[in-house]
Order: sequence, then structure tokens, then C-alpha cells
Amino acid sequence: MMAEIAPINFTRGVPADESLPVDELIEAAREALATHRSGILQYGPSTGFPPFRDWIAEWLGVAPNRLLLANGSLQLIEFVCLELLSPGDVVFTESPTYDRTLTLLRRHGAKVVGIPLEPDGPDIAALELALERNVPKLFYTIPDFQNPAGATCSATKRRRIVELADKYGFLLLEDAPYRLLRYRGTPEPTLFDLAPERTLHMSSFTKLIAPGIRTGFLAGNEALVARLAKIAEDTYISPGYLAEGVAYEWCRRGSLPGQIEKLKRLYSPRLDACLAAIDRHLPGVDATRPDGGFFISVILPPDAMTTAVRTAARERKLNLADGLAFFPDGGGERFLRLPFCALTPEEIEDGIQRLAATIADVREAA
Amino acid sequence: MMAEIAPINFTRGVPADESLPVDELIEAAREALATHRSGILQYGPSTGFPPFRDWIAEWLGVAPNRLLLANGSLQLIEFVCLELLSPGDVVFTESPTYDRTLTLLRRHGAKVVGIPLEPDGPDIAALELALERNVPKLFYTIPDFQNPAGATCSATKRRRIVELADKYGFLLLEDAPYRLLRYRGTPEPTLFDLAPERTLHMSSFTKLIAPGIRTGFLAGNEALVARLAKIAEDTYISPGYLAEGVAYEWCRRGSLPGQIEKLKRLYSPRLDACLAAIDRHLPGVDATRPDGGFFISVILPPDAMTTAVRTAARERKLNLADGLAFFPDGGGERFLRLPFCALTPEEIEDGIQRLAATIADVREAA
Repeated sequence: MMAEIAPINFTRGVPADESLPVDELIEAAREALATHRSGILQYGPSTGFPPFRDWIAEWLGVAPNRLLLANGSLQLIEFVCLELLSPGDVVFTESPTYDRTLTLLRRHGAKVVGIPLEPDGPDIAALELALERNVPKLFYTIPDFQNPAGATCSATKRRRIVELADKYGFLLLEDAPYRLLRYRGTPEPTLFDLAPERTLHMSSFTKLIAPGIRTGFLAGNEALVARLAKIAEDTYISPGYLAEGVAYEWCRRGSLPGQIEKLKRLYSPRLDACLAAIDRHLPGVDATRPDGGFFISVILPPDAMTTAVRTAARERKLNLADGLAFFPDGGGERFLRLPFCALTPEEIEDGIQRLAATIADVREAA
Repeated sequence: MMAEIAPINFTRGVPADESLPVDELIEAAREALATHRSGILQYGPSTGFPPFRDWIAEWLGVAPNRLLLANGSLQLIEFVCLELLSPGDVVFTESPTYDRTLTLLRRHGAKVVGIPLEPDGPDIAALELALERNVPKLFYTIPDFQNPAGATCSATKRRRIVELADKYGFLLLEDAPYRLLRYRGTPEPTLFDLAPERTLHMSSFTKLIAPGIRTGFLAGNEALVARLAKIAEDTYISPGYLAEGVAYEWCRRGSLPGQIEKLKRLYSPRLDACLAAIDRHLPGVDATRPDGGFFISVILPPDAMTTAVRTAARERKLNLADGLAFFPDGGGERFLRLPFCALTPEEIEDGIQRLAATIADVREAA
């Protein structure tokens, strides 16, 4: 019987396949190659295909020389680490945070200090206490629809974080891949809006279109961007110009606003389905209630650790990710990230039912 | 008068714009997107788009799990450095060698030892002497149509290098971007042919098609490739799948052999024109006489240092590159690299005439 049910994957934070604008990209690729030819088929400046850099700059409302395009935003974090970190340097992150950033920070020998994340952003008292002990080179933060928690930082906390960055003198590395995917409510200002010279604002930009294009951007202080561009040139000469040319033509045709609307229409019911299923099947379980993004997170009951639930869930063909890797300095034993975007509302309802049944199995076995 | 002549650039080693298969790539992009859809628009394994990895593996005659695709070959050198080097480690390179590799090696704190390059490959006596002093982690070498010198390593020297690598226990990092561009003569075995477990064989693969695609590969020992793939995943999750998908469809249709023939037909007369012009206008000047690739190099006369010639050449609208950056531990004051592929035979004749006249200017002024 079990063998006949389909697996449900609450594992990776990826867009839904049905959101990918394949036909538009075919047309954009044709246009990009026919128009730009050697402009996207040769090497070029490490800051990215110049027309695309200009387009993103105008769209963001920043000067082009404040912008660096690269092969994905993780690669941009690597450049920031290469430029700014020496082994032993202190970096703050939220706890939990994006696990791949932690891997990169550790590769550079950073001493990572986790600031506990609350539903409205980092715990400011904990941040202040940590600052009394160590001033970090960087505070890496994901203010909007955070990965993995789903929390969004309040405007009040954003302002306080900027004040503290000014007072103590550290940089803010603002990772904002999900910011445009707000399904309700109004956006808060970015840290970059509040402190443009003290913030490096990043986006995994083509995740909104198709991750396989692999173009992210970073906006920041002009001098620092120039140094990061030199690091980029030393690493790979130029980023993927063919890919950037295709994305540029797609953007130039005005496809981005419609794509974002399409994503909101697709994902908003999935968020609702996930919240409703949690209320129905996991009453009393502590869950974030985001207004956008890819992720809800839950704290499982004390007698149902994530590792045990994850193992038991395989019996029900429910695939879950471990929570521990998101926590820079321990914790997370009961943390579970639920990426809902690549599942239909029906799969989400079924998946949360399986999760509730698995939790019951684990409690019974205990 | 001077203002009216066109500039001639003997500067960067890039393919000729007219070699770029634009129309074929438009068709390949359409096919790749229509066929593979989410297969090239989502994230995927860090080793590269699996069908493309399989295609290159078969073409090279190696098992796919010995192969890593990445966003250009320089990025692969960065992964090798990340995996294998600690600050202070010794690395051998040819002297001169590719300047961007030197930059990366130094970023990792390597102690670079240059082995003098002769017209038939590294000076073996110097290599043996250097090995008595230090055993390197790696010997980085460009055996075919070397950048920047244009030298090709003889079969005898290749065998001796492999013997020494076995005897002393170091890895060979074989960079082979120009190997397929042999305009005459017969190819020598690769170091990877001679010592597949001791060699990491690399190619800036899409330089043969269009550098802006930005896909290179590395073939080597399976366990080491797996470790490099983990470094790649930690750095950027996946390489550019859209670009790899386009290159794959282009390759799958059988376009590579015709492209290589096209490049040979285009570049071979340019090599001939460059050699003939050197014989005609720079008699007695020491020049390499390669049978392929992108580069000839010359050693300027004792009274005409490259820096002085380069400065004086601007008067004649001749743009030259400095030679010093190619030499890991000094020398190169009279070295001049002449990349001939992106110039027509007429431009080459004109450029070498300007070079000869500039050398005369510099000698006269001395």
C-alpha cells in the first residue's frame, strides 16, 4: 500500500517547475544572440553584461557602478568573504540562517556568532549583548521572508540594526532573494534603503525567473563594489554573459512584473494551504506565519525531535530536511523548515497530514 | 595623419568575433530550452548538466565521474587551489605562464617557483634542480601551444615530467585550452594520457565555441573530482545550466568538429602571416614558431625593453601587453606575447611593421 503513494518533498527551496517562463526565454535567447552576438559570446567586464547591469541599476534605482552581477548570489557571498574576511574574524548571522552561507563563512575561517531570530527579526537584546563582546566584520541577515525560518524583520528592528551598525562600525550583508514575493501586506524598507553605504544588498535575481540562468546581483558602496569586481575578475574573468544576455532581453521586454505576479498567484494559495493545514493537523505547534517567500518553519513538540521525525517520515514517503545545519552555534533540534512553493495545495495538505501522523508515531514510540 | 590609422591590438588571447557560431547557437538555445526545460532552468548537480557531462566524457574517452564542468577553467583552478593548497605550499609553473593562474595561486598564499620554458617545453634540468629543493603540491603546465610563449612540450619531455611526478609524488595540473587548435603536425600525448591518476587535465572548453558561454571542464582522479565537486557546490550550488544546456545541444548536433576545422582555416593563415612578418620585419629577433594555438612570443633585442616598446608603440596606435606579469619570479623584461587569432593577416603584417618601426624608434632614442 505504502509503495503506491507518491513521495512529498519538503526539502529544498526551489521555484515550482510550472513557474519557469520557458517560451519567453526561447524568444529572449534568440533575440539576445541575434542582437548582441559577440557582446554576449566573448569575455567582458567582470561586473556583468553592461546593458544588463544598467537595466538592473535603473530598476533598483542605484548607479550602475554600485552594482556587481555574478553567477548566483552564493558566489557573491564568496567574493565578499574573499575581500573582507581573514581567519578568526567574527561574523554575525541570524540563528537559524541559510546553511550554505554558514559553509562559506566557515571555509574562510570566520568565527560565526548566531543572533536568535524572532518572528519579527533578530533578537535585538541578544544582538546588543553580542556586540558588547565582539564587533563583527559583517552581519549577514535575510530580512524578508527569511530562509529558513520565514520571519520578516520589522521596520523598527531594521532601524535599530542600522543604528547599531553605525554605532559599532560593521557592514550589513542583506540577502533579499524573496523580497519581491510578498503575497500580502506592505514591504518594509530594505537595510540598503536605510543605510546605503553600510549595506551590501544582494539578490539571487534569476531565482525569480529560472535558477539555472544563475545570475545574482550585489549593490553597495562604489569603492567596495570595485574591489569585489577585481576579486570576481581574478576568479573567473567574466560571469556567464550568454546567460546574462538572455536574462537581459527577457527583462528588457518587460517580463519581470508579469512573472512576479504569476509567482504570487501560484505561491500565495500554497502559503495559505500550508498555514491552514498546520492549523488543522498540527494544532498548538509553534509555526511562523509569513506573508510571502518560500518557507514556513515549525518548532516540533518537545518529544518529537526533527531527526527522529525525519527518519520516521520516510515510512510515509515524506521527505524532510534536517534543521541542525541552519544553526551556527547549536540548537535547532526541533526546527523544521517547510518549503511550500514547489508543491500544490493538495500535496501540501497531504504532506502536513503525513507530518502530523509521523509526529504521532514518534511520540507513541517514545 | 597618425590619428587616421586604425589601432592594432596584440593584447588579449581571445577568439576572432567572426568565428562565433551565432546562428547555430540560436538554434541550439531554442532546442535546449524546448527539450530540457526545468532540466536546465533549475538547480542541479555541481558537476554540471548531466547530459553535457556525459557527452564530454564520451568525447574525451573518460568515465563521467572523472569529470567536473564549471563556469570557465579559471574557476576550476580556483577550486583546485581551494582543495589542495594551504598558505606557504610550493607550486611549480612554467616561466613564463598564464598570468591569471599566478594571481589565483598567490591569492591562496602559494610559493610559486617558475621553471624556465624552452621552445620544446620546460627546462628539465631546471625542473630536476628545483625538485631537489622543494617538492611542489602541483606543477601547473600548459603543454600545447603555451600561453603566453607559444611553446609545445615534446613527447620526450612529457614522459620525463610524468616520471618526475611519479618519483617525487606531485600532481600535474595540465591546462589544455589550445590543444585542438593544431594547424600542422601531429599531436603529442597529453600528460593525462600518460598519467591519468596523477594529472588534472583542464580545458577552457567553450573558448572553442564562444567564451561567453563560460563552460570549462576538468578530468582527473575520481575521488579528487568528487572533492572538487563539493567545493564547487559550496561555492555556487550549480554552474550555469542554461549555458551548459545550449553548449550541449550545439555539441550533440555534431557541430564541434566543423567548428574546429573552421577555426583552423581561419587561424592557420594568421599564424603563417605572423611568422612571415616576423621573418621579414624583425630578422634576427628570437621568436617561437608554434604549430597551433593563439600565441607567438618574441624576445625583443637587448636594447629594446618591452615596457619601453609598449609605451612607444602607442604613438603608432599599436597596443601591446606587458610581459612581466607572465613571469612568476622575475624576468620577462624583453618578452612580448603576440596573440594573432583575432587579427586578419593584413592587420598582422601592418602590426608587425609597426612593431619593427617602434623597436627602431626605441633603439634610436637610447
